[in-house]
Amino acid sequence: MLLPQIKQPSDLKGMSHDDLALLSAEIRQFLIEKLSATGGHLAPNLGVVELTVALHYCYNSPKDKMIFDVGHQAYVHKVLTGRMDRFDTLRQQNGLCGFVKRNESEHDVWEAGHSSTSLSAAMGMALARDLKGEDNQVIPIIGDGALTGGMAFEALNHIGHEQRKMMVVLNDNEMSIAPNVGAMHKYLSKIRSDRHYLKAKDDVEGMLKKIPAIGDRLAKSASWIKDSVKYMMVPGVLFEELGFKYLGPIDGHDIPQLIEAFKQADNVDGPVLVHVLTTKGKGYQPAEADSHKWHGISPYKIESGQVLKAVGKPMYTEIFGQTLVELAKEDKRIVAVTPAMPTGSGLIPFSKAYPDRMIDVGIAEQHAATMCAALAMEGLKPVYAVYSTFMQRAYDQIVHDICRHNANVMFAIDRAGFVGPDGETHQGVYDVAFMRHIPNIVLMMPKDENELRHMMKTALDYNEGPIAYRYPRNNVVGVPLDEVLVPIPIGTWEQLRPAEGYAIIASGSMVQLAEEAAEVIKREGINTGVINARFLKPLDEQMLRDLAVRGTKLIVLEETSQAGSMGSAVLEFYAEQGIHDVQVHLMGIPDRFIEHGSIKEQREEVGLTVENVCNELRKMVVQSSYGMSKTRFPS
Amino acid sequence: MLLPQIKQPSDLKGMSHDDLALLSAEIRQFLIEKLSATGGHLAPNLGVVELTVALHYCYNSPKDKMIFDVGHQAYVHKVLTGRMDRFDTLRQQNGLCGFVKRNESEHDVWEAGHSSTSLSAAMGMALARDLKGEDNQVIPIIGDGALTGGMAFEALNHIGHEQRKMMVVLNDNEMSIAPNVGAMHKYLSKIRSDRHYLKAKDDVEGMLKKIPAIGDRLAKSASWIKDSVKYMMVPGVLFEELGFKYLGPIDGHDIPQLIEAFKQADNVDGPVLVHVLTTKGKGYQPAEADSHKWHGISPYKIESGQVLKAVGKPMYTEIFGQTLVELAKEDKRIVAVTPAMPTGSGLIPFSKAYPDRMIDVGIAEQHAATMCAALAMEGLKPVYAVYSTFMQRAYDQIVHDICRHNANVMFAIDRAGFVGPDGETHQGVYDVAFMRHIPNIVLMMPKDENELRHMMKTALDYNEGPIAYRYPRNNVVGVPLDEVLVPIPIGTWEQLRPAEGYAIIASGSMVQLAEEAAEVIKREGINTGVINARFLKPLDEQMLRDLAVRGTKLIVLEETSQAGSMGSAVLEFYAEQGIHDVQVHLMGIPDRFIEHGSIKEQREEVGLTVENVCNELRKMVVQSSYGMSKTRFPS
Repeated sequence: MLLPQIKQPSDLKGMSHDDLALLSAEIRQFLIEKLSATGGHLAPNLGVVELTVALHYCYNSPKDKMIFDVGHQAYVHKVLTGRMDRFDTLRQQNGLCGFVKRNESEHDVWEAGHSSTSLSAAMGMALARDLKGEDNQVIPIIGDGALTGGMAFEALNHIGHEQRKMMVVLNDNEMSIAPNVGAMHKYLSKIRSDRHYLKAKDDVEGMLKKIPAIGDRLAKSASWIKDSVKYMMVPGVLFEELGFKYLGPIDGHDIPQLIEAFKQADNVDGPVLVHVLTTKGKGYQPAEADSHKWHGISPYKIESGQVLKAVGKPMYTEIFGQTLVELAKEDKRIVAVTPAMPTGSGLIPFSKAYPDRMIDVGIAEQHAATMCAALAMEGLKPVYAVYSTFMQRAYDQIVHDICRHNANVMFAIDRAGFVGPDGETHQGVYDVAFMRHIPNIVLMMPKDENELRHMMKTALDYNEGPIAYRYPRNNVVGVPLDEVLVPIPIGTWEQLRPAEGYAIIASGSMVQLAEEAAEVIKREGINTGVINARFLKPLDEQMLRDLAVRGTKLIVLEETSQAGSMGSAVLEFYAEQGIHDVQVHLMGIPDRFIEHGSIKEQREEVGLTVENVCNELRKMVVQSSYGMSKTRFPS
Repeated sequence: MLLPQIKQPSDLKGMSHDDLALLSAEIRQFLIEKLSATGGHLAPNLGVVELTVALHYCYNSPKDKMIFDVGHQAYVHKVLTGRMDRFDTLRQQNGLCGFVKRNESEHDVWEAGHSSTSLSAAMGMALARDLKGEDNQVIPIIGDGALTGGMAFEALNHIGHEQRKMMVVLNDNEMSIAPNVGAMHKYLSKIRSDRHYLKAKDDVEGMLKKIPAIGDRLAKSASWIKDSVKYMMVPGVLFEELGFKYLGPIDGHDIPQLIEAFKQADNVDGPVLVHVLTTKGKGYQPAEADSHKWHGISPYKIESGQVLKAVGKPMYTEIFGQTLVELAKEDKRIVAVTPAMPTGSGLIPFSKAYPDRMIDVGIAEQHAATMCAALAMEGLKPVYAVYSTFMQRAYDQIVHDICRHNANVMFAIDRAGFVGPDGETHQGVYDVAFMRHIPNIVLMMPKDENELRHMMKTALDYNEGPIAYRYPRNNVVGVPLDEVLVPIPIGTWEQLRPAEGYAIIASGSMVQLAEEAAEVIKREGINTGVINARFLKPLDEQMLRDLAVRGTKLIVLEETSQAGSMGSAVLEFYAEQGIHDVQVHLMGIPDRFIEHGSIKEQREEVGLTVENVCNELRKMVVQSSYGMSKTRFPS
């Protein structure tokens, strides 16, 4: 066994090419075994074993900066940089992070989580290197899927212009999470599949030697012809036109070929793009056969490839997907738009039922948002199905192109709230805060899956501007589903338990938590109201006024950034109305990033628990009996 | 005169090519005259006169959708669509908008303001057309500068993939606002400047006829060679590779050539890109000679080209630019980053003093933000100089790449607050609301230019994470400038007038307004405190506690979205602290978009005036004497 000897990347330096290949096989086996217990991003990592080994063999991390785009494909890098023994804790609270993480290792120089940032990071590091007069290499490793994100192009354009030394590794596996769409993908496929390339290159070189004999007029156009010839010599003309030296395509599972390419690349002064062809899931048959399914996977049986999923209630995502199919049957205006997440967003049933009305734009959240605005302006009813965290990319387009146009775009915001093992970069905890202040938008969150369905109908029937429903990455509550869907009056809340002195205003999953807390505290003789704040904007102003008149003390409970979200809106409402003596306690997510763990652990970490809600209610009761003045400066 | 006869685009239909050229000359003269009085985007519009005339001649607006990217180059379109008589009111309150505006005309089908959205809008409109079974053409008109914005590439990639009918007009004038940077720009320049193109094309065609004689091995590589030949035949290979039919380059001031190109384009079933070369400022010598200066211009004298600028105090922008040069002299770590606004952001002195440390990335706000994070992580101190409104594009990158990394990026947020004649799409009124909830960031706003300078020093000396200072699009107050710059303790406010029962907590320009209001109300015997809330995050918690203890009634006064901004933070703070009996009145910008006009008019429209602040203070005094309960439900 070679793997146990590798404590740091420098341990690779003396190894033969054959040993590097053996080591790669061992790493692959290691990952297949470890992930069978923990789950994780298996297929992407199996695809980059040789690539990562060759990079660490050729370069000196951390002096040379390896920047993994997204960062879910850095498991091999983690194995090679001394973190082998932590794989049993992968993606668990206080365990090894599923992404690159700077506080884990000096070799982790850039954290991402969202795609397409590596080239911009590389540009910054190359610029810093040159300003400081240092001489390290900078190595962004970016997938072909991530290349469709607009900011990757912004960076390519800038890098090509600046001409600073850098080696971009294009890890081309023909997939992002789902199969790629887009013209760039077709272009790369053409290069990849061109069996004639090498031979044709020889042929053309031969032909070119004969050109002078053809006619002297050609000589006059020499420089133009020279450029055209360049197009013949390289398959990567698109990158060459943008100022990169193109090398490839390279077999990403052939270590000597990779090493040779990296050596060549290192001799180039400006930016080089090394086009590496890899197979997602390489070396594990089930993952190779269905790399989409095996992109991120639950624990599984190694021999059979059987995935060990907890049998349980469906996810909100599924209810959304099924309901959208139902609604689309009745309403031909519905079009579904996804930025490269057809499966993750539950849109596969829709795409089968209505292929013409299903638009996957690639990793392009900005484009998707603006396109939705235009679809709406032409009388269609687009559903922009997007994860809360990825929607962050489209903030400006939501403000200007959707809300300012007051376009009838429906947002289906999935993964709202904590997301569990993906951690910090995937938490859906800012969308309320970054959308609530935008004029014209309506924001909803259902307490259960049945309400989600009614909200989808509400959104469909609403024709006065943008409207969003957000729902968690979680199993549904398990309530019966109404067959007939009825729109909910905009801006109305639902009083689930009458308020008697105290009330919890809760949104989404927190409604259930509020109900549980109300049950617990009832046993202590305290009755608290529970309000389902199903509209986050506009608020139910009448209900808020009524609560104030009755002197009800309020807890606002939400699984989202406490700053700027619904609790903040409640406070603003009372201030605007000149109602200054309502006691409102906010329970949300504090002002820091919350790391990976289970959703339950993440809620506990920030105090969104039944016990804590009960404690706050108890405090309110005590304060009431001692009078307000006691409450001013809690210790 | 032909122009007075043109009431709608259909009036162009019967005209000869010669008359269209005459009409173009008249339009040009019209714009030069009108804008000499109002100011406006002269150079961009002079560049697209023939282009716009030819489009309206060839197509049927509004059935065929003309989508102007940004929309500041739509004056000719406005002239041709019945709005000639409103040009005296251009960019004034209730007057003609400086951008495309749907409520002005049925011919205005898409509003923008920010760049690079036209292709996404076009994709949406083409898709809607096909789903509805209609047959109109969709015509995005996009500048070469706007093409560097990432979302434009996202759209190109998707349009090339979908292959729906569309004519993209690439209006290539070699400029965005400032001269373009980037590899795409170099690529377009190469096409533009290639004098050999037409002749070489003939030569290559001749050569190709002889190829079969060269050798039979070539035949085996036929398809590859065919592709390579395509590269020889067209200069727009980059666009062809992305799935577009490329036509061009076309002389954008030659009407017959434009009409011929549009006819050819219309015969293509999928997406076509027509590459049109135009000269910014065409036909008016001063604007042609310095199209950068004449991009957006104040009123001017036509004969001399002399710009009539009100002589006055410098802008905040200039103070920023000068101070940055001073600081950079002492601190070699400072790097300035701008997304295509070197002049607008006041960075010209810096770029002259420190050319190596000045980075213009093109219209690429996302890339700029992420690159800044990487620069900071490598020990430099990047200043991301950006307009508040454009920073909206980088929200996700600010959250994940800057704040989550806790990178020492300094933000210089210009045009914070109302911006006047550019209107809705350029208002800098959301940055506080969309940044305040992000962990780790510090947000400042100075009351005057001297404080701005101290804040810049504060930011430079702060090494614990991201820090921002925002300042208005306005002339400075006119206070003396301290030579020695001293950091301000983080999270401390400044009490300018002692609070006696009432206090105004104001930020930025609103501090001056608060002081004026305090003076006015003092004459009525009411003393109010004035607090300079120079930190928007973190708040001065000690001062807020002290105010609460003394029972001070507060007005929070800010020129930013009332929802989610500093006033909201003050309310949250009191709620979190269990301080429930403080009376806080919020004065900010209400929940709607504010149109063009002067900054003064915009402030009046939303009630940010001395008179209104005084009225609120008077109300508070009355309420105090009648007791709190009277205040609960104001009529």
